[in-house]
Amino acid sequence: MIIDIHGHYTTAPAALGLWRDRQVAALEDPSLAPSRTDLSISDDDLRESIEANQLRLMDERGIDLTVFSPRASFMAHHVGSFATSAEWAAICNELCHRVSRLYPGRFVPAAMLPQSPGVDPATCLPELTRCVEEYGAVALNLNPDPSGGHWTAPPLTDRYWYPVYEKMVEYGVPAMVHVSTSINAAFHTTGAHYLNADTTAFMQLIQGDLFKDFPTLKLIIPHGGGAVPYHWGRFRGLAMALGKPTLEEHLLGNVFFDTCVYHQPGIDLLLEVIPTQNILFASEMIGAVRDIDPWTGHHFDDTARYIDAAGLDEAELGAIHEHNARTVYPRLDALLKRQGR
Amino acid sequence: MIIDIHGHYTTAPAALGLWRDRQVAALEDPSLAPSRTDLSISDDDLRESIEANQLRLMDERGIDLTVFSPRASFMAHHVGSFATSAEWAAICNELCHRVSRLYPGRFVPAAMLPQSPGVDPATCLPELTRCVEEYGAVALNLNPDPSGGHWTAPPLTDRYWYPVYEKMVEYGVPAMVHVSTSINAAFHTTGAHYLNADTTAFMQLIQGDLFKDFPTLKLIIPHGGGAVPYHWGRFRGLAMALGKPTLEEHLLGNVFFDTCVYHQPGIDLLLEVIPTQNILFASEMIGAVRDIDPWTGHHFDDTARYIDAAGLDEAELGAIHEHNARTVYPRLDALLKRQGR
Repeated sequence: MIIDIHGHYTTAPAALGLWRDRQVAALEDPSLAPSRTDLSISDDDLRESIEANQLRLMDERGIDLTVFSPRASFMAHHVGSFATSAEWAAICNELCHRVSRLYPGRFVPAAMLPQSPGVDPATCLPELTRCVEEYGAVALNLNPDPSGGHWTAPPLTDRYWYPVYEKMVEYGVPAMVHVSTSINAAFHTTGAHYLNADTTAFMQLIQGDLFKDFPTLKLIIPHGGGAVPYHWGRFRGLAMALGKPTLEEHLLGNVFFDTCVYHQPGIDLLLEVIPTQNILFASEMIGAVRDIDPWTGHHFDDTARYIDAAGLDEAELGAIHEHNARTVYPRLDALLKRQGR
Repeated sequence: MIIDIHGHYTTAPAALGLWRDRQVAALEDPSLAPSRTDLSISDDDLRESIEANQLRLMDERGIDLTVFSPRASFMAHHVGSFATSAEWAAICNELCHRVSRLYPGRFVPAAMLPQSPGVDPATCLPELTRCVEEYGAVALNLNPDPSGGHWTAPPLTDRYWYPVYEKMVEYGVPAMVHVSTSINAAFHTTGAHYLNADTTAFMQLIQGDLFKDFPTLKLIIPHGGGAVPYHWGRFRGLAMALGKPTLEEHLLGNVFFDTCVYHQPGIDLLLEVIPTQNILFASEMIGAVRDIDPWTGHHFDDTARYIDAAGLDEAELGAIHEHNARTVYPRLDALLKRQGR
């Protein structure tokens, strides 16, 4: 079985974006505010948006199941207040939940949190609770920079974030550390901000001792870990300079990397440098890079091909495709077992 | 010959740091302001700081010559006003100049600019002029984020920066794009901010068309290009999505990467992905990572070893060790020719 742990609902029906436009416009003129019931998306609309896109490509690429969360760049936690984010997250999470019910063997939801800059992350717990208990979410996306590129939040090792971690540990759900749109002109969203956030988060974790307080907490660094595996020697050396244990001891019981690296040499490096048990298959399809690579004739984000070509043995392939995900996402494993898989 | 294009004077005599402490203290209490003449560092002090450190390691590692600039993390352009940076840059540049005169075959200066957040970069031109015309600087360091991790400056493709580029083209000096200390708690200076800046700068260059306006401008992205080579497929795909030419056509006539990547798999990936003519030997020694790697028994930053072990042929080695630097740094080439090298 191949589990893609990093999919977003990037192809949601246009009505969702139009509703969001009205919500944003209402920040200036509250009389424009849409109600939840103004958004009408039928099951057929959902099916059409999924079957022509993610499901088609999953079938073409042999991906059995995708952990599916709202579109990352649309989270836009910097917009409006907590109330804005709360309503928007509720709507987006409900859509992913509905997709998972339409295709119960193929999509499993992960929660978007209603984060807002400067607002106590504990405010996100009701939505997280709903997603886990009512929607069957097996993970969540945690934005280390709800300001959208201004990086005003404390590091991930700060007690500021502990209410979220406590709930994660209680539920047994991991978090993917994933930023949203950059409103800082210096940072292109998917070409700079996403990768920078991955690198930044990993270095924050090196500097702190978060997993002493939360030994069972699990975090996934997406996009192949940003710059981290490429600079593994640098990070090993920085950990030494900071008087920390080895990265294996300090972080690799709790931190995992996905395979969203869009060329063969990058995947080869990831597989060479990072222990197999810390790598989870993912493509973030349909996402930042949607074209066909003219050098290969295949989609840049068809990461399954790179992994197939990397010369792994069957046990390693099984770990990266399936078994590591079942370990890191225990609620996913339980669901699969209930489904007889 | 082996040319290291990325060295900083990280081992300057302690008197320099003490003078800076007084300068910073004077921002609160101007009566504490030190004068230039309060700083007294003898040639013997300089020799001691260099011979026990950079020169010793250069000899051990077979590095003939280092392009030598003031300590990057000490530039701290966010501190004080333009006047603060102007005095500090003048002092730091003069020290690198003196080192280069003491060891004329071994160190060649590169300029630090007196940047200051929100201040027109044209204010940096008198210092750049002095460094090139009086000190023989062959390059400069350009900080894309003088705010120190708040990223308040326009992208590098903005006309804001054009006065510096015009002078660079006039003189034939390249710039290394290099940030300084992060004062943003989210970003560790050498583990996140440096690498993020490299990635950010490259993506800014993809988004713009800077080299249409400056076809002979040359920029070096340090630290092996941050996350860029590891994610080369992503960047190729993003360039396509933005309707830009291929990266080769769009950027690689003007953008170069150094080899400050501190483990073998990272160097191997850099050499595999980036064309040989775009790679310049560097170690950034003595810098962010000073320890010996317990896995190899050698210093993490002994990048010459990784390159030696990468299986390059003689022509490729010569290009990376020497010839590319002579092409990208024409004033260095001219100096070497005057020295009969």
